[in-house]
Amino acid sequence: MRLPERLKIINVGLRSFYEDLKLQRAEAVHVEWRPPAGGDPELAKLLEKLERPEVDEANQKAVERILAASPKLIGIGTAKEVIPKMDEDTYLHSGPPIEWERMSGPTKGAIMGALIYEGRAKNVEEAERIAKSGEIKFAPCHDHDSVGPMAGVISPSMPVFIVENNGKRYYSNLNEGLGKVLRYGAYGDETIKRLKWMEQTLGPVLKEALKLSGPIDLKAIMAQALHMGDELHCRNVASSLLFLKQLAPFIAQTGFSEKEKAEVMRFMGENFLFFLNPAMAAAKAMMDAGHRIKHSTVVTVLARNGTDFGIKVSGLDDEWFTAPAEVPKTLFFPGFKEEDANPDIGDSAIMETAGFGGFASATAPAVVQVVGGTATAAAEYTKEMAEICLVKDKSFSIPFLNFEGTPRCIDLRKVVDTGILPFINTGVAHKKPGYGTVGFGVLRAPMLCFTKALKSFVERYGW
Amino acid sequence: MRLPERLKIINVGLRSFYEDLKLQRAEAVHVEWRPPAGGDPELAKLLEKLERPEVDEANQKAVERILAASPKLIGIGTAKEVIPKMDEDTYLHSGPPIEWERMSGPTKGAIMGALIYEGRAKNVEEAERIAKSGEIKFAPCHDHDSVGPMAGVISPSMPVFIVENNGKRYYSNLNEGLGKVLRYGAYGDETIKRLKWMEQTLGPVLKEALKLSGPIDLKAIMAQALHMGDELHCRNVASSLLFLKQLAPFIAQTGFSEKEKAEVMRFMGENFLFFLNPAMAAAKAMMDAGHRIKHSTVVTVLARNGTDFGIKVSGLDDEWFTAPAEVPKTLFFPGFKEEDANPDIGDSAIMETAGFGGFASATAPAVVQVVGGTATAAAEYTKEMAEICLVKDKSFSIPFLNFEGTPRCIDLRKVVDTGILPFINTGVAHKKPGYGTVGFGVLRAPMLCFTKALKSFVERYGW
Repeated sequence: MRLPERLKIINVGLRSFYEDLKLQRAEAVHVEWRPPAGGDPELAKLLEKLERPEVDEANQKAVERILAASPKLIGIGTAKEVIPKMDEDTYLHSGPPIEWERMSGPTKGAIMGALIYEGRAKNVEEAERIAKSGEIKFAPCHDHDSVGPMAGVISPSMPVFIVENNGKRYYSNLNEGLGKVLRYGAYGDETIKRLKWMEQTLGPVLKEALKLSGPIDLKAIMAQALHMGDELHCRNVASSLLFLKQLAPFIAQTGFSEKEKAEVMRFMGENFLFFLNPAMAAAKAMMDAGHRIKHSTVVTVLARNGTDFGIKVSGLDDEWFTAPAEVPKTLFFPGFKEEDANPDIGDSAIMETAGFGGFASATAPAVVQVVGGTATAAAEYTKEMAEICLVKDKSFSIPFLNFEGTPRCIDLRKVVDTGILPFINTGVAHKKPGYGTVGFGVLRAPMLCFTKALKSFVERYGW
Repeated sequence: MRLPERLKIINVGLRSFYEDLKLQRAEAVHVEWRPPAGGDPELAKLLEKLERPEVDEANQKAVERILAASPKLIGIGTAKEVIPKMDEDTYLHSGPPIEWERMSGPTKGAIMGALIYEGRAKNVEEAERIAKSGEIKFAPCHDHDSVGPMAGVISPSMPVFIVENNGKRYYSNLNEGLGKVLRYGAYGDETIKRLKWMEQTLGPVLKEALKLSGPIDLKAIMAQALHMGDELHCRNVASSLLFLKQLAPFIAQTGFSEKEKAEVMRFMGENFLFFLNPAMAAAKAMMDAGHRIKHSTVVTVLARNGTDFGIKVSGLDDEWFTAPAEVPKTLFFPGFKEEDANPDIGDSAIMETAGFGGFASATAPAVVQVVGGTATAAAEYTKEMAEICLVKDKSFSIPFLNFEGTPRCIDLRKVVDTGILPFINTGVAHKKPGYGTVGFGVLRAPMLCFTKALKSFVERYGW
């Protein structure tokens, strides 16, 4: 039998009206019409200039390269020995470039902690003096083919993951867990002692285990973890276990003591963010595969230093486009509150840049607890992000969207045109140095980065 | 603003009509009215007799005990030494009792394989002679506080998991993986060699690791795995990793060689069903906590021996109610086809009995590939099973049903009344002895078991 179509409401225009209908549980279809660029005539004109076949072709090329990337974890090295242009005086940090004075509390805390860890300062006071003196150099991880979560401080002696794609190498530090950890700005004895153990035990054990195991396919772990409730930014539960599973038999066969091997396995097993760092290096490798393509408007970096939010765009080489970083909407750990939260920080938004984290929310409803936390709400974020992306990648499918691919490759044009800003899941740091993690949160990237990049794009190509 | 209610279709009566509407994507509400017991006047009369406060009270008690159960894995033992009423001549099998002549191919294969493994027979011919001779005794695992997947053969020398709840112990054998394995009826050299390794290496290593670790909380692993895409019957990917994660540091500290430790970790890590067996013993412990409660209609066992499907009901003690086992709707491994499939087999339906497997389909859409495999279809099975269950257990929540609990505690009355039969995910064995796994499938429990039990219930209590 056939039935008449049921009554539907069709909404043309303002999304807020549509959202209102949805709240009332009426079935509404939102027809995508909005004034381009939110009705800003100048931006609309610039956008029009970017509607060219050469941009579409360049983006096509970028998408192909990004989707074809297959990064492998090939080893562990010491930062100053393996990271390009790194030396005893170089201290890397997350996000766009920033000088000491403008650094946020957690970044300052992590730099000071790193100076103590390196044995260059005896205490925080001496560390602050050195940091201010100009004696050491600061640089973004991203500008050294590296990524670091939160403060993202990588100092010369730290062990780092080495990830390779298509002959090019990328780096990330090792994940310390949560609480009083360097990347959230802590620098006390507990923090420094853990970093030393990571340098002297964790790094060497993993290095030997990786020699025995051979390269580890990070894309395979990431794809499987998306089927197991990880969005790979704030939830790396499954991926960390899959990683441990691959390495454990080789760790067992290294020449270290039984106690050391057990410690390493326990540390990896109990830290549900352990895989975040190799995943970030993998995401960086993927996005870099589509970077520096002439005419491409694909966004290849989203990164924050705790003060500024910065983006890079494929066709605009290594120029950063920045705006003030905002404070995430946060679910606080007991004992912390709104005023404790530092603005958005970390290179970990490379996960969203590559189509994971907030973009893959549908697979991890628990992560969006802070904004309601239902499965339906989580799925909506993924669907919304698809509106600013060039592709849904079937290699990274999401069971609860009937195995649809996660949205990947943000198009700068679509962001400005639709006004839909990248949705980011993130850890939240205490705004003062020395404290550590205060919670997990969500937020949007600031529009200003994208409009700045759009203007620069038109100027650069003289259109 | 307010909107008029949109058009809905209300269906009263036959579910098939409702399903038809749903296929046409019209919004339809199915109002649950059906003639009780599918219109069978005799059954309807029996059902009426069971609508008593003492049944509701008894079920309440059963539900409370089942939900309160918290089984722990406390060790590994040798079957003949730890399983009650087990000796050198006892060979346990899955499902209800069955004599040699009526056993299915895979059960016969597993019994013959076990006789070879035990060193009691030199080859299949000798094994068959012994099995037929009456020299050895056959008994259901369930009648020995044990559970075994597929053929479920537990022979005297096998290592078994020991699970404890509230002072009572339950047992399961160790999982061999897939392919040419004993529990699917294989008995070749490869199968026997693996069983010997399990007895001589896997069992002893795990036994020592468990002594070092102390008891393992199985409920915690199961609850977490439901958040990671495991329905815990055909998909134990996450649970097996969580189990490995807990044991790996202790395995590293046992006195075995590095090679043996690495082998054990690799075997556990590469078998995505490794945790099925301890999960089954845990599910048995949970359901047994609600068993033998006077007047309770809670179904405490669903089990199959490859020939018959059998159930037990709390208020009916240890009586089995059986019906012929059906062939699952199967997704075959390459090289196998419809005619190769044995009828439904294994104690693993204890997972569904306890509210997992097919009852938790919503969390693992990949598992229901054989019947469509969409997330929506998977969720529908869980919702349907809630109609025959007494409770949704928040301790075992499902993210994609907005963290609703999985349906638990099947009420015999509801099954007969609604005609909704338990939905089971299962492995499928080759029907001939000696072959092994042919695929994964789904099916429903047969109604006849439930109507037989209903009749017996009324007789037993003289209502």
